[in-house]
Amino acid sequence: MGEILLLAAGGALGAVSRYGLNNLTVKLLGDSFPYGTLIVNCLGCFVLGFLMQWGFSSDSHNTHLKLMLTAGFLGAFTTFSTFSYETLDCFKNGDYFNGFSNILANVLLGLLMVFIGAYLGSLLKQNSGT
Amino acid sequence: MGEILLLAAGGALGAVSRYGLNNLTVKLLGDSFPYGTLIVNCLGCFVLGFLMQWGFSSDSHNTHLKLMLTAGFLGAFTTFSTFSYETLDCFKNGDYFNGFSNILANVLLGLLMVFIGAYLGSLLKQNSGT
Repeated sequence: MGEILLLAAGGALGAVSRYGLNNLTVKLLGDSFPYGTLIVNCLGCFVLGFLMQWGFSSDSHNTHLKLMLTAGFLGAFTTFSTFSYETLDCFKNGDYFNGFSNILANVLLGLLMVFIGAYLGSLLKQNSGT
Repeated sequence: MGEILLLAAGGALGAVSRYGLNNLTVKLLGDSFPYGTLIVNCLGCFVLGFLMQWGFSSDSHNTHLKLMLTAGFLGAFTTFSTFSYETLDCFKNGDYFNGFSNILANVLLGLLMVFIGAYLGSLLKQNSGT
């Protein structure tokens, strides 16, 4: 039961943070391209990669924290459904350039961000653990 | 304030549902391929497409419900960070086939599911609204 509550709390915070950051991005960059979802997804990928390499030992305290931050917060902070909806919207409007750019940017930058996050996480772990 | 609470409630339910469905998928299909995230993402894309076409008029009751279900529940139910992490994991393990298959399956099926959901939603709206 405690696990479910932590997961729910992480999910609630993740969704609210995504919504806030997305609104801020639209204010700053406009809505001609779905920058909000791209920024949220890249940021979430970076932090997930970092935390998975740096963050968690196997004791039970860490297991709960890991669940709350990864499956809870970051799972809810990033979103695949909005990414797909916004991409399809570009295609429906005949804006193929933005549609394909959105796919490439999310997939390639997402992978790159996980990679960089994981690399930095493992570097930090090596330096602090020895 | 009410909006934020609805968003948080949707996010909490979405994260818990994703976790439950993902665990069930791993039990049923094993973990040789990240089927759990794929299924969750496709299902969320379908429902988002459906709801955006069928679901919401512009009165304030609907605006709140829309926020809770779309940005809250479905945004948190689907995930981009886990998708990217699992894809990178395939590549790191030298399993390029599963890595590229995971990208193609999530992106193409996600788009297809939004499209089918939206098509069914608009059909239902036409039939019930006239």
